[in-house]
Amino acid sequence: MNRNLQVLLKSRPEGWVTEANFDVVETDMQEARPGEVLVRNHWLSLDPYMRGRMSATKSYAASVDIGAVMVGGTVGEIVDSKHPRLKTGQFVVGSLGWQLYATSSGEGLSVVDPKAVPLQAYLGVVGMPGVTAWTGLYEILQPRAGETVLVSAASGAVGGVVGQLAKMQGCRVVGIAGGSAKCQYTVQELGFDACVDYKGGKLLDDLKAACPDGVDCYFENVGGVVMDTVLRVLNPFSRVALCGLIADYNTTEPYGITMIRSILVNRVKVQGFIVSDRMDMFQRALPKLAKLVAGGKIKYRETVADGLRAAPKAFIGMLKGENLGKQLVKLV
Amino acid sequence: MNRNLQVLLKSRPEGWVTEANFDVVETDMQEARPGEVLVRNHWLSLDPYMRGRMSATKSYAASVDIGAVMVGGTVGEIVDSKHPRLKTGQFVVGSLGWQLYATSSGEGLSVVDPKAVPLQAYLGVVGMPGVTAWTGLYEILQPRAGETVLVSAASGAVGGVVGQLAKMQGCRVVGIAGGSAKCQYTVQELGFDACVDYKGGKLLDDLKAACPDGVDCYFENVGGVVMDTVLRVLNPFSRVALCGLIADYNTTEPYGITMIRSILVNRVKVQGFIVSDRMDMFQRALPKLAKLVAGGKIKYRETVADGLRAAPKAFIGMLKGENLGKQLVKLV
Repeated sequence: MNRNLQVLLKSRPEGWVTEANFDVVETDMQEARPGEVLVRNHWLSLDPYMRGRMSATKSYAASVDIGAVMVGGTVGEIVDSKHPRLKTGQFVVGSLGWQLYATSSGEGLSVVDPKAVPLQAYLGVVGMPGVTAWTGLYEILQPRAGETVLVSAASGAVGGVVGQLAKMQGCRVVGIAGGSAKCQYTVQELGFDACVDYKGGKLLDDLKAACPDGVDCYFENVGGVVMDTVLRVLNPFSRVALCGLIADYNTTEPYGITMIRSILVNRVKVQGFIVSDRMDMFQRALPKLAKLVAGGKIKYRETVADGLRAAPKAFIGMLKGENLGKQLVKLV
Repeated sequence: MNRNLQVLLKSRPEGWVTEANFDVVETDMQEARPGEVLVRNHWLSLDPYMRGRMSATKSYAASVDIGAVMVGGTVGEIVDSKHPRLKTGQFVVGSLGWQLYATSSGEGLSVVDPKAVPLQAYLGVVGMPGVTAWTGLYEILQPRAGETVLVSAASGAVGGVVGQLAKMQGCRVVGIAGGSAKCQYTVQELGFDACVDYKGGKLLDDLKAACPDGVDCYFENVGGVVMDTVLRVLNPFSRVALCGLIADYNTTEPYGITMIRSILVNRVKVQGFIVSDRMDMFQRALPKLAKLVAGGKIKYRETVADGLRAAPKAFIGMLKGENLGKQLVKLV
């Protein structure tokens, strides 16, 4: 009988996550019971939201229990099926967690075509991060041609798609990223008009230079001092899609935003959102994203960790911004 | 020839406004030129937004120049008319500033009926503050029956109307005010379900007790630590109408809001607004507000300073929360 490998939550982090917060364990592989499938995961997605699930703090989704398998998006192959509809050999994307094998009732699994785009793209541009970008941009920011769209974590799995979609809308697109390599990537490879390095030491001046007409739409993945500085360059009637606050995820004392006044004076709309509220958007956006990716209209990069045992370290690296583009773990 | 009395901006305040920032001067009265009216102001409105106009900081409206008459809403009588439409003896509401007499081209003046409601109500519940309440409540918060609506500066000219309108919507209405007298007034006289005294030293606990089902709609007039604490009791999919931030108007270092995370986790919409963007709302709301006030369905209180020379002191008192209800200056 095959053995499974799983990453469990061992303890809740205080401040920064460490590898000691995880347990990598070999366990007996479950078999598919009647109505179930057994999936061999090929790829695991690592995403910032997982940091929230490690804490006991009340959030929009339940915390991972101590000793439970870490939550995570996966794409893999059905290796056994006792399910009426799903078949052995089909590839499915879902949220089967940090493990090599998982059984599932099929709920929350979607069959994907591994020939349309690379399999792991269903965890990135043609998956949850892509739909997140689509939802925030089109449902909340609603940019008009000629407007300036600013995106933080611009080289990330979400930010890169936001910028490329906004560019197709006829917007001036400006990114914020950490370090010159990421900034160069967004401009030269993803086609952003400009990118500001928030580690450059003069964020406000650089933002003003990169956004000479101010900012009409801001897609926020970061929070903290980056958000506070962006509030200073918002235009009247601008919109902010609040998607993530990674700057605060590993701090015990969150940063205090001083520029709330800008929201009032500029009549700004700030809208927090979670893509899982909008399952309708997956059906609308995924076919279009798949077509854009297949046609080379949306580009992306991946940072790949090799094997499940490498997942904790890769996750911590992603929270620190060490990855470029989508952070994945290759399991097969 | 009659003499005019005017209050000029003498210097820009650093932090708290003082009476030394104003100059009260006697000047020659202007005469109405062809196409103009001469208005004798009966009442001057004192409002928090005026603090912003005293500063040079960029805002949605131009600053008052040093040496210029302070801006302010007024209601008065036309004592001379060379205007084709406006007639001597008519009463007009407008923004003629901190002075006893003013000439005007008629632009921005609206004729009002002094018999429908008391004249000074056109500066309060049947004026800009009333329309502000109406716009924030119906256009942004859009409360549903059974939801909890929380209002800061609840005993103020805006907050009192917000609460009474929300009550008519079938909402649970909770106020935040400074001191037990103001809290008692909102509950006993205005019909709020509860009111929390932010000076009571346990704001979070008191809010939780007053809002057992959390907060669905928050009408924000205050900002600072009050806002940061309210963010902790917001419900998923709640709405915040950001109308004022009086807590920060006289500080040199604005308070840092730490609970931005709540906007993300609870998918909150925060919308800054300025009533002067929505002149359409005046036409829609004012007739309805006048009817509600005349019918005793909306109650209000006034704090009246006697004579223009008392305006600077009364204005500072209002910024410190010393007034109850609408702060007015009686000029006649």
